[in-house]
Amino acid sequence: MKSALSFLVAARQCEIADLEQLALTSELVSAIGRLTHALQKERGISNVFLGSHGARFGDQRLAQVMECEQVEQHVRGQFNGLNTDSGGLRNGARLFSRIAFVLQALDALPALRQRIGAQAVPAEEATAAMVRLIGGLLVVVFEAADSATDPEISRALVALFNFMQGKEFSGQERALGSAAFASGHADAAHTQHWLHLIESQERCFGVCTDFSDLALLRAWKASQPGDAMAELERLRRIGCALSATGTRNADLSQVWYDCCTMRIDAMKTVEDLLGAHLRGLCERKIAQARAELRDQKIIQASLLQQANAASLHTSAQYGPQLERSILGMVQEQALRLQAMGDELETVRASLNERKVVERAKGLLMATRKLNEDEAYKMLRQTAMNQNRRLRDVVEAVLAMADFL
Amino acid sequence: MKSALSFLVAARQCEIADLEQLALTSELVSAIGRLTHALQKERGISNVFLGSHGARFGDQRLAQVMECEQVEQHVRGQFNGLNTDSGGLRNGARLFSRIAFVLQALDALPALRQRIGAQAVPAEEATAAMVRLIGGLLVVVFEAADSATDPEISRALVALFNFMQGKEFSGQERALGSAAFASGHADAAHTQHWLHLIESQERCFGVCTDFSDLALLRAWKASQPGDAMAELERLRRIGCALSATGTRNADLSQVWYDCCTMRIDAMKTVEDLLGAHLRGLCERKIAQARAELRDQKIIQASLLQQANAASLHTSAQYGPQLERSILGMVQEQALRLQAMGDELETVRASLNERKVVERAKGLLMATRKLNEDEAYKMLRQTAMNQNRRLRDVVEAVLAMADFL
Repeated sequence: MKSALSFLVAARQCEIADLEQLALTSELVSAIGRLTHALQKERGISNVFLGSHGARFGDQRLAQVMECEQVEQHVRGQFNGLNTDSGGLRNGARLFSRIAFVLQALDALPALRQRIGAQAVPAEEATAAMVRLIGGLLVVVFEAADSATDPEISRALVALFNFMQGKEFSGQERALGSAAFASGHADAAHTQHWLHLIESQERCFGVCTDFSDLALLRAWKASQPGDAMAELERLRRIGCALSATGTRNADLSQVWYDCCTMRIDAMKTVEDLLGAHLRGLCERKIAQARAELRDQKIIQASLLQQANAASLHTSAQYGPQLERSILGMVQEQALRLQAMGDELETVRASLNERKVVERAKGLLMATRKLNEDEAYKMLRQTAMNQNRRLRDVVEAVLAMADFL
Repeated sequence: MKSALSFLVAARQCEIADLEQLALTSELVSAIGRLTHALQKERGISNVFLGSHGARFGDQRLAQVMECEQVEQHVRGQFNGLNTDSGGLRNGARLFSRIAFVLQALDALPALRQRIGAQAVPAEEATAAMVRLIGGLLVVVFEAADSATDPEISRALVALFNFMQGKEFSGQERALGSAAFASGHADAAHTQHWLHLIESQERCFGVCTDFSDLALLRAWKASQPGDAMAELERLRRIGCALSATGTRNADLSQVWYDCCTMRIDAMKTVEDLLGAHLRGLCERKIAQARAELRDQKIIQASLLQQANAASLHTSAQYGPQLERSILGMVQEQALRLQAMGDELETVRASLNERKVVERAKGLLMATRKLNEDEAYKMLRQTAMNQNRRLRDVVEAVLAMADFL
């Protein structure tokens, strides 16, 4: 029969297995970050290309596509390395189904690129397809953050996910602005969407800041120098006024693209730091858990030796002193897991916003026969029209579920 | 390279593995129910035995101890059958550490029984030790409910957990009343505790009722006939008045014990129904998931065949029609998992009460240097003194965390 001590060891081994899975996931997240970055660039370039009717960025686009294809191979390799056979991966059902979505979207990419090259697709449609693909990649990161069982690692993943999400809003802003400047006009809906993207970026970077340590905050601050931000804000002002002024200024599309790209590339450096921090954290936690397991086994061996010696004198299974030692170890471990669970719940609460948005979207899709993009647009539009936060609108929608 | 389709299959396989683990856990929960029931009886008998200074229930106690030992062997066997080697069990860290607690408490039981037999332990101390052990067993059930990934099974586990918890409060009431009637007196604190146990039972059965279907509700109602309840309430009234009247009536301890035991035995029948419902549900879900996986594989094989035929004509990886089919399958699965996740979160919310109580206890233990029992008593006492619900007190304590 397995003893209390052997179950304590087994519990520790499960913790180590959880950490090892998180370490693997962190590698995957880094690879996803690289692919996201490359695709974001391709999306921006494609927008200038389409907006300028093929006059600009033709060569850059082909070079960027080649880069994307290389990074994509790396990510596919990482997916391939995941253990899909045993059904033993934690959170595997959700993670794998998210990966299936990504792979299906990646498979559809060559056809989309062909249509972009032939200028046979509107900029908006091309952007929407890339937004969906990148959104799918980010959801893989979200699932990783949501399934983490260690609160510190969960914090790091939440920070990284929000940073990547914020960077993606910046990328969408780059694409939107590129198309607007290249074509020389933007209607009121465009401008509203633009403002929404700016606000969303700030919210995501705010959450990331809340969950990051000082060194990372400094790196983030250093990546956003004042003069670059001033230039960005100036261009944003001109861009958002396009619907009123409507002057085409194709040069500005290059200036805008470069300004955004410099900023987004700087973000990538910060993202890499966040990723390195996460991987280092996993390594440290695994080493620590292994050392603790080793210590625990040594203590247990000595306790059992005492027990065997004692059993010469008494018929009870263990002596009372040994019983107290075991009780102490059991209680210590239970308290530690309890504290971890509490902290984890606090960290995870920050992921709830995305969950309620998803739920509200699902509700609108089901009751209003909308697709995902339309449902999200409806929520965003309502928030803008009523000048309320997206979160408040979403909660109002969910509260009215019975009436929809 | 693994395809989108193979990841869809892998996701399904993970769902099946999750369900299979839940089925195993359900077996474990049934075994725990049997042991809990036997220990509850032993606790009641021991209380009459100790309260009557060994005059009553001497033989019954020995017979009940033997029964407990038999059921204990069965539970130990179930623990033993758990796969502790691979570190691969979901929620393994928490579950195994809870099991370690139970095993340690079971190991300490023979010594406690010896002291009870020698009347060398106060009834209250013996009860407290048994309450801790049974509490540990119920926490194993709680962890199972908290880690379930299927909302319907989670519902069934939440219902079962709350029922077992309610039954345990009834058992504690039986023990408390047995000791009070046998010794002929109960102070004000005893009476307050008694009232708390009655209220706690009702809350637990209320939650269980919310999560159960009609057939189970009928069984529950049938197990509580009016005349038996009237007798119970009459005895409760006499018992709670003991602190004022203080008349010893040893016969009443037998009447009380029998009345409670009949009720608790009837509860066990309902608990068995809940357990059977849970196991049936697991079986059905597994069969259904396997059938769906089989169908999915057939569809995929035919899709891939079409793709291979099509690839004779085109260089693209899949044709556009195949692409749409895959996208449909991916979206369908994502929506299903999303809906399951939403429902799961709603069901799990009902488990939060226990979690906040645990957190408040932990806080008091850390800041006031109390042990677990003392911390819980302090919360309960505060609720009684202020005539507020335990939940409100607990939330107030957590809100004041920074000041403690």
